[in-house]
Amino acid sequence: MIIVMAPGHTEAHREAVTRRIEELGYKTHPIFGVERTVLAAVGHEDKTPLESLQSMPGVEAVIPILKPFKLASSEYRKTPTFVDVGGEAVGGRRLAIMAGPCAVEDEAQMMECAAAARKHGARFLRGGAFKPRTSPYSFQGLEEEGLRFMQAADAHGLKVVTELISVNDLELIEAYADMIQIGARNAQNFSLLKVAGRSKLPILLKRGMAQTAREYLMAAEYILSEGNYDVVLCERGIRTFEDSTRNTLDLSAVPVIKSQCHLPVIVDPSHAAGTWRLVPPLARAAIAVGADGLIFEIHPRPQDAVSDGPQSLKFDTFAAMMEDVRRIAEAMGRTI
Amino acid sequence: MIIVMAPGHTEAHREAVTRRIEELGYKTHPIFGVERTVLAAVGHEDKTPLESLQSMPGVEAVIPILKPFKLASSEYRKTPTFVDVGGEAVGGRRLAIMAGPCAVEDEAQMMECAAAARKHGARFLRGGAFKPRTSPYSFQGLEEEGLRFMQAADAHGLKVVTELISVNDLELIEAYADMIQIGARNAQNFSLLKVAGRSKLPILLKRGMAQTAREYLMAAEYILSEGNYDVVLCERGIRTFEDSTRNTLDLSAVPVIKSQCHLPVIVDPSHAAGTWRLVPPLARAAIAVGADGLIFEIHPRPQDAVSDGPQSLKFDTFAAMMEDVRRIAEAMGRTI
Amino acid sequence: MIIVMAPGHTEAHREAVTRRIEELGYKTHPIFGVERTVLAAVGHEDKTPLESLQSMPGVEAVIPILKPFKLASSEYRKTPTFVDVGGEAVGGRRLAIMAGPCAVEDEAQMMECAAAARKHGARFLRGGAFKPRTSPYSFQGLEEEGLRFMQAADAHGLKVVTELISVNDLELIEAYADMIQIGARNAQNFSLLKVAGRSKLPILLKRGMAQTAREYLMAAEYILSEGNYDVVLCERGIRTFEDSTRNTLDLSAVPVIKSQCHLPVIVDPSHAAGTWRLVPPLARAAIAVGADGLIFEIHPRPQDAVSDGPQSLKFDTFAAMMEDVRRIAEAMGRTI
Amino acid sequence: MIIVMAPGHTEAHREAVTRRIEELGYKTHPIFGVERTVLAAVGHEDKTPLESLQSMPGVEAVIPILKPFKLASSEYRKTPTFVDVGGEAVGGRRLAIMAGPCAVEDEAQMMECAAAARKHGARFLRGGAFKPRTSPYSFQGLEEEGLRFMQAADAHGLKVVTELISVNDLELIEAYADMIQIGARNAQNFSLLKVAGRSKLPILLKRGMAQTAREYLMAAEYILSEGNYDVVLCERGIRTFEDSTRNTLDLSAVPVIKSQCHLPVIVDPSHAAGTWRLVPPLARAAIAVGADGLIFEIHPRPQDAVSDGPQSLKFDTFAAMMEDVRRIAEAMGRTI
Repeated sequence: MIIVMAPGHTEAHREAVTRRIEELGYKTHPIFGVERTVLAAVGHEDKTPLESLQSMPGVEAVIPILKPFKLASSEYRKTPTFVDVGGEAVGGRRLAIMAGPCAVEDEAQMMECAAAARKHGARFLRGGAFKPRTSPYSFQGLEEEGLRFMQAADAHGLKVVTELISVNDLELIEAYADMIQIGARNAQNFSLLKVAGRSKLPILLKRGMAQTAREYLMAAEYILSEGNYDVVLCERGIRTFEDSTRNTLDLSAVPVIKSQCHLPVIVDPSHAAGTWRLVPPLARAAIAVGADGLIFEIHPRPQDAVSDGPQSLKFDTFAAMMEDVRRIAEAMGRTI
Repeated sequence: MIIVMAPGHTEAHREAVTRRIEELGYKTHPIFGVERTVLAAVGHEDKTPLESLQSMPGVEAVIPILKPFKLASSEYRKTPTFVDVGGEAVGGRRLAIMAGPCAVEDEAQMMECAAAARKHGARFLRGGAFKPRTSPYSFQGLEEEGLRFMQAADAHGLKVVTELISVNDLELIEAYADMIQIGARNAQNFSLLKVAGRSKLPILLKRGMAQTAREYLMAAEYILSEGNYDVVLCERGIRTFEDSTRNTLDLSAVPVIKSQCHLPVIVDPSHAAGTWRLVPPLARAAIAVGADGLIFEIHPRPQDAVSDGPQSLKFDTFAAMMEDVRRIAEAMGRTI
Repeated sequence: MIIVMAPGHTEAHREAVTRRIEELGYKTHPIFGVERTVLAAVGHEDKTPLESLQSMPGVEAVIPILKPFKLASSEYRKTPTFVDVGGEAVGGRRLAIMAGPCAVEDEAQMMECAAAARKHGARFLRGGAFKPRTSPYSFQGLEEEGLRFMQAADAHGLKVVTELISVNDLELIEAYADMIQIGARNAQNFSLLKVAGRSKLPILLKRGMAQTAREYLMAAEYILSEGNYDVVLCERGIRTFEDSTRNTLDLSAVPVIKSQCHLPVIVDPSHAAGTWRLVPPLARAAIAVGADGLIFEIHPRPQDAVSDGPQSLKFDTFAAMMEDVRRIAEAMGRTI
Repeated sequence: MIIVMAPGHTEAHREAVTRRIEELGYKTHPIFGVERTVLAAVGHEDKTPLESLQSMPGVEAVIPILKPFKLASSEYRKTPTFVDVGGEAVGGRRLAIMAGPCAVEDEAQMMECAAAARKHGARFLRGGAFKPRTSPYSFQGLEEEGLRFMQAADAHGLKVVTELISVNDLELIEAYADMIQIGARNAQNFSLLKVAGRSKLPILLKRGMAQTAREYLMAAEYILSEGNYDVVLCERGIRTFEDSTRNTLDLSAVPVIKSQCHLPVIVDPSHAAGTWRLVPPLARAAIAVGADGLIFEIHPRPQDAVSDGPQSLKFDTFAAMMEDVRRIAEAMGRTI
């Protein structure tokens, strides 16, 4: 940590700060600059909260040097992680394509979606049985019945990805799913992250709408620190002033995260866009920027969908998009 | 709802959309403008998801007219709600002042804080026994022991406000608290909101860092729709590009919310500011903009705090701030 | 326009609003909904400012239906525009690659950059002779001398793109450049936009850091409405809370704009990223999302650059990146 | 500056960086931490661009210690500045109240506004004769005729504040105005800032919608560095995701700026709010947070205004608001 002393601080201030730093187990190195004096504190930064020094008289700022995540860091593990989802890998040369409806509605819908997903190159079937909806009056999901309908995946050799929204549903989800999604609205629900960290299933952790890349990796760290190392990250758009899309897809986050973290990163173009027309170009861009896969929404009849109809792809658009994605994947030296 | 047809749509498109709207139980009124045709759909907007019409060919946009919240709305209840917290009212002429440390650390700290809080005009003692921390390696709270230390409130006639972070801790929290806080990171944790809606205790619901005012009221609606009408709202800063504060305190949200909603609104200047120096001016501004109270952090020795030291007020600053707040309150025709 | 009447408005309110709308040259259609009454105003929306009706008693909201830009709109011109820059086209199948240093420093630097740009597929040489710098103490550019050094472009058959920052420099810039850049910080400097609209040269208009896509197209409309139809748009990052990049590159803006506007759109990955390491992945993504070209920064020795060194590519990275970009371009059916 | 070396850097990397720092005129102090090595560079930070070191192999980050503004800094001038506007002070105990219409429309309108402004405590008449409008088809201002109508101020002893939008209009504006406004859209139009810095009149510099507090002070520094020390700052709202207001008024910016800068700071609640109903509460809050004054829009008949009608106050609301503002001012030990 670097402690910047304020202009006009006294020697007594500096001594008090130095004493406090050393009490906390660090060594100090003062550096007397032309306009500022700084104290470099050398020690294990994760141990004690030097931020509190900011309250001491004469202190202008406390600047951390180290990144606050460990297990998620590419310093901790130097090669990219492959996450095994029921025998299918996420990470590596082959892209992970996850398709399905926003909400599970009925068995026929899931069978249609699973068949289309399989046909056009997906290896994973997504679908929500527990839906975190902005309005309490919106459809909240079919719950266990919905999970049963997701077994449509089996007939087509797909793996099931579905969202966990309450700590008490873990066992139920584990009984049906191959991979557990933690949604953007729960990205800082630390109780849920800890429970996910104790699951035997791999986790798909979506980025929160207001999370910096650093905070997002800290959320992953919660899961890893409980012992579950099978975490796949997913950029899905952040909150900005731009209102022509539902969220702003932050594709820079993919290389930013990959430069600091060994976990696979996929992209959800549907929730960022909010409209199906933007999903194909954003899906192509996601692969070109280096993502390890895609998760997006398809529906046999989007105009009848109970949730997120406007951003769901019809099957013919899905098929055409996958042709384009395949070409971009090849240009990137990857396969589907 | 207003459905805007795209330029170049065909009559068949318009007929299909009209048919679909009517199937969904609405009546349609077409309006043929100079450059656009719009279809006004008349009916109970909360019933069926017209947004899905956006997927139909020939549709440019679907514009809702009604606000999506009901029970929280000032159309539903035309006079401001007073929330009873163990005999103390929030809302109304007298301001609700809630002070205490970020995290409960030990009994002495809580006794000191309770005495100071009482002395300078607070009626509520805040403090966290379960801490939602960005890092899994940060102090996570004393849990039940911390709740016991909060009983320091009793000796000084203060009401206890503390945060619930997991659906499974509800009974434990209810055994010790007078008011349950739902934190900003759980503002869209709908499972937790539903549990809060079934509690017999009043709820302090903090605004999420990426929530629009409208989405925030929808989160309150989750609690109300489960039968708990005792909800106090709390603006605490939103995520913006500005980095000289931890978050940007959105004081406009106070009159915005009060123009649409009957619930009391208080302000947390500590978490928005991130530094104690900004807390007094923001506290004064919060009262001047029309807030019904304040919640903020105090600590006997901020430089030793295990959490949020930099933004905690020392007792002398707290005392001086309350003098200023009192004068602003009087100018607003309110008391402390 | 749709005028939404407030709950509780009187008939007199509605009559007054109706009268005012009709005075302003519109016809009105009232629609009596279950919970709201709306007045549809039919007429030429661009004529008179119905927004002011919001001040009238009984009015809840005024909702525009039409997009406010005309000449930039794909309704006005249904086929994509190709912009001719000194004989080189921007728009169309062949990508426009613009490379060069942030600031022109000396003749040798420009000769080296021009040679490298040509060698690796660029058709345009960028470089700033007038620099809009955040600090008045930073290097402000070589001015006319810098423009002379940009003639290095000629020897390599490149076109010159350089920024105009003051209405009084137009003639000087026109004497040396093939294309005039209007920078992000001047994206709402309407005096400068009008002057650009009167130039005989094509304009490269960068998006402002806080401009919505709609406002950005309005800025383009300023140039078009003065008679200069040769405008190329450029997404270069918007301001968000994310701090691991200098700005957040909003790649969704490319298909969003292309769905509404006939002008070519290129992408600047350098200024969004703020660090050279992110430029290659973002450049690939920009082509995959459908951009018509790229503009980015190269420098023979970035560590010695007087401006934007951290985001400038060395020539070997530039060369490698162009190989990747070429493969993505082919996958998109385009060439370099 | 602090240069953080990357994990895995070699001694040769460190030596090359050290050599480069010393070539640039700094001394280096290496500090070998537990997980990172940092190099502290001691010297005059404003001289040379150490940021470029970020391009060198082995460098992880470059962290500046000093604030980049000098003349605007409270280290440069330790007491608050009073700005003299034609004999009226801005800054100090007495608040500066600036009222008037968004756009000058005709002589009668200006006479009515001037009379109302004077009556209710304003000392300054604002009004735009040159209007920076988002759409080229919106009213662009009466230009010199509008400036003539602003002489209505004289009859009521008010000072004239009006906006400069082009470097070529300076002399014309100087002939009529007492204070020159630089608007939010020109906050990083550095050519215009330099021209303002050479004016003999005081400058009202509005904050840009996407400017951090630090960048805003750098914009002020442009004016000061040209020799014009009479600068008043004005917070007017920043761009965020919240859409119930036109912009988000960042009242924290007032104490943030005052802790770093000696210039007066006023607040514009009208442009932030976008609707007149929010202007009175935000005006009260601005005074309570410590602002030195207010600038806002009034209009005799807002529903007929050619610009910004929805956010203009009618005279009776203006009068009532000033009563409240006066009470808050007294509570703050200030007068109107």
